Amino acid sequence: MTQTKSNFLMVCLRGTSQVFFMENALTGVLFFVAMAYASYVSGVWATTIGAAVGIVVATLTAQVLDLDEESIEQGLYGFNGILIGAALPTFIAVSPQLWVYVVVGAAASTVFTAAFSATLTKVFGVPGSTGPFVLTGWLMVAGAYSFGGLDVIGDSPRLPTATTQHAMVIPQGIELVEIFFRNIGQVYLLGSAVSGAIILAGIFIASVAAGIAVVAGSVIAIIVSVAMAADPALVRQGLYGFSPVLTALAVGVIFLQPSLRVALYAALATVVTVFIQGALDIIVAPSGVPSFTAPYVLTMYLFIAPKKLMVPHPHKPVVGHSVGGAPASGGS
Amino acid sequence: MTQTKSNFLMVCLRGTSQVFFMENALTGVLFFVAMAYASYVSGVWATTIGAAVGIVVATLTAQVLDLDEESIEQGLYGFNGILIGAALPTFIAVSPQLWVYVVVGAAASTVFTAAFSATLTKVFGVPGSTGPFVLTGWLMVAGAYSFGGLDVIGDSPRLPTATTQHAMVIPQGIELVEIFFRNIGQVYLLGSAVSGAIILAGIFIASVAAGIAVVAGSVIAIIVSVAMAADPALVRQGLYGFSPVLTALAVGVIFLQPSLRVALYAALATVVTVFIQGALDIIVAPSGVPSFTAPYVLTMYLFIAPKKLMVPHPHKPVVGHSVGGAPASGGS
Amino acid sequence: MTQTKSNFLMVCLRGTSQVFFMENALTGVLFFVAMAYASYVSGVWATTIGAAVGIVVATLTAQVLDLDEESIEQGLYGFNGILIGAALPTFIAVSPQLWVYVVVGAAASTVFTAAFSATLTKVFGVPGSTGPFVLTGWLMVAGAYSFGGLDVIGDSPRLPTATTQHAMVIPQGIELVEIFFRNIGQVYLLGSAVSGAIILAGIFIASVAAGIAVVAGSVIAIIVSVAMAADPALVRQGLYGFSPVLTALAVGVIFLQPSLRVALYAALATVVTVFIQGALDIIVAPSGVPSFTAPYVLTMYLFIAPKKLMVPHPHKPVVGHSVGGAPASGGS
Repeated sequence: MTQTKSNFLMVCLRGTSQVFFMENALTGVLFFVAMAYASYVSGVWATTIGAAVGIVVATLTAQVLDLDEESIEQGLYGFNGILIGAALPTFIAVSPQLWVYVVVGAAASTVFTAAFSATLTKVFGVPGSTGPFVLTGWLMVAGAYSFGGLDVIGDSPRLPTATTQHAMVIPQGIELVEIFFRNIGQVYLLGSAVSGAIILAGIFIASVAAGIAVVAGSVIAIIVSVAMAADPALVRQGLYGFSPVLTALAVGVIFLQPSLRVALYAALATVVTVFIQGALDIIVAPSGVPSFTAPYVLTMYLFIAPKKLMVPHPHKPVVGHSVGGAPASGGS
Repeated sequence: MTQTKSNFLMVCLRGTSQVFFMENALTGVLFFVAMAYASYVSGVWATTIGAAVGIVVATLTAQVLDLDEESIEQGLYGFNGILIGAALPTFIAVSPQLWVYVVVGAAASTVFTAAFSATLTKVFGVPGSTGPFVLTGWLMVAGAYSFGGLDVIGDSPRLPTATTQHAMVIPQGIELVEIFFRNIGQVYLLGSAVSGAIILAGIFIASVAAGIAVVAGSVIAIIVSVAMAADPALVRQGLYGFSPVLTALAVGVIFLQPSLRVALYAALATVVTVFIQGALDIIVAPSGVPSFTAPYVLTMYLFIAPKKLMVPHPHKPVVGHSVGGAPASGGS
Repeated sequence: MTQTKSNFLMVCLRGTSQVFFMENALTGVLFFVAMAYASYVSGVWATTIGAAVGIVVATLTAQVLDLDEESIEQGLYGFNGILIGAALPTFIAVSPQLWVYVVVGAAASTVFTAAFSATLTKVFGVPGSTGPFVLTGWLMVAGAYSFGGLDVIGDSPRLPTATTQHAMVIPQGIELVEIFFRNIGQVYLLGSAVSGAIILAGIFIASVAAGIAVVAGSVIAIIVSVAMAADPALVRQGLYGFSPVLTALAVGVIFLQPSLRVALYAALATVVTVFIQGALDIIVAPSGVPSFTAPYVLTMYLFIAPKKLMVPHPHKPVVGHSVGGAPASGGS
């Protein structure tokens, strides 16, 4: 263990950037700037402070548990913790118990990340991604209703309203631009368009291809959610866009080898993510928890599990000659 | 790709028959006749048209994704799509967005089928069966509540009524016969007894053993649901029978080598499926979605996972001589 | 099959003790004494009779299915059945259908135990533990709402109350002692402190280390649930303690090699279990089922999945010399 203080800071900043699959400390700095800007505007600093606590605790826990050093260095044991740290103060009022919750939740997210890694990734070849955050976040927000020391802000457990029939509302001009950026900012639970723009800049610094995928994801999300006549209030806040943005990036650029075929596959996945966003908002309502990035996580798991489909296919071997190596059989 | 038009039609018809695990184009034709008859009686054609769209889109998607050719040929990438195509117009009113939903849902069902195949089947040896249909169907019907362009027909999200105490009602005469056939027709979401009879004929054409299992499943379902005093209205519509029918067929004939022992095992599984039908109807109620074939899927997964138990056991090897090959140890 | 009657009794008693991971017939006798004492006090004998039926049916089912003999001998195919037998009469009023339910449920629990074993354990290395009980119990209690022949006692399906704000109540004196023992008794769904004390004695007879872990789990559960201001009525009945007790025992002593590091890991897991208890109580409320031991099961699965982390780490191999065997890489 020759971790110096400065190294630890770099690890945390790389972890901060891993929320968008980047591994770039400068990108991490910009993401923290985006969070701080949103806190400055709203006056609520608990989220940004929570994020800092989350990334530190999650990363330290990984070190204490002696998890895979390379993964820790890349920040892969930090990004679920930072999301827990940002999310809990977004949905639970500040109290002494909240900070206990943030610390224990961030530590648990590291254990859960290791568990996803040892099962989902090792056996099925599917990355855990923000699945551990979704699981931890659901349990902790739901749990908060049981504890007097924790006061949930936001939607209480409720039956989904079945009668709501939203008319189709096509956003115009500046509002359209704001939604475009909020779709990106909401990945970090930030409703600020400026924060979204800062995050997008951070992504482009790390990877132009990633930036393009994020832009495409946000555009597809707007088109599909508007065409299906989703609740305009949710669309406006960027709540129909952050999961599709992650899907476009993960399926289109990060976990598959980019190609025209993969781009079309990722576009289908992104459209499906918008539908699953609508579905999970209904399904989690009686538990009083937000759907978090579950629409992305579920879609990505299902589209990446058969990933061998997406590798470049050699031409079929000539029967009886077998010149092309293994036959290009699929995921059945 | 030397698929001719006629070949494609045969693939789609085989896929249609695969809903009952058959691989027989004529059976597929009869299943479409059953659907068309029910549409003719009810005047609602969207379900039959949706089924046709579903099987075509799902099969085409598998071809475009270059999935395993043999599985495509057998219709294994089509039957989840046809069920999506039949189910969505059953539970969602016709609108332009519904047809978008059917097409995207059928395409997604093929990806999900590949995902189940690459994980559940490859790693655990458990067939995905209609699991991808259940997952896709739940997500899309739940999602429909979020979108103004989609109007859900049928039960809205609700808390299960705990006070309902149904008296035991024993169906008599012609009604008993109708329930027997509706239990079969409802696999294709058809409430028509005649449609159920046509489907049963189609199954017998393909396999006598399969036909017998279906008959047994329907009978067991009636006995158990009546004896437990299930809601007579649901029993009458065949809604307590279609999952048990599939369980009896899948566990008794398709996925295990038939024997007396397997028949008893399948009978237990069929009884359990009736109980799980009662359970899932309660559990999914707050989400406002039907339980679809989930009672069958869950039961089948749990009874097939330890399938090594059900292979014929050789006599134990003589200790110290080891004449009998590997010891007949079970699923522990 | 040379099982004699007396052997079968021993197998059942060992299965009874396996609820706490013990393999000791005398411990099993004490556990039945604890159940009988609670029945004597409450006047409700269906639970104790149900437990006896459950262990017999589950064990017989395992024998008929010819499951792994050693596992059967150790009682590993019995403990889920005994819990089903104890739980169903706790939550469902006595009727002829209840006893059908107990018998079929106990038989199904054995199949489900084999299914968990063939998948979770074989592929991921995670013990199924009481997971099959939780799954079977949820399905059967939820199903009971659908059947007129079954009448659920206890909480009906409901939306969680979001406004409940419990003040922090610190239990004192004799009440504290009672909670401490009820936390143990509730593993067998017993609200009697005396029964809890008898169970604890049974555990100490089988293993002192196990007894210490159980004591520690109960103490941690009281501290955390009181500090978070959980509902005092639930804390008093021991309902915040039985899952943490199992977690402390399973993670701290049974499934990992005890050490200081493992003790700290188990302490974190135990704290997390209290939070997950609060969460699952909310999440299962709309289905009208109890959370059973799910908080323990979920926590244990997640903390044991990356268990390679917890084996003693050799010093890192000298690079280029490789003296230390495999590098101590973690669960990524």
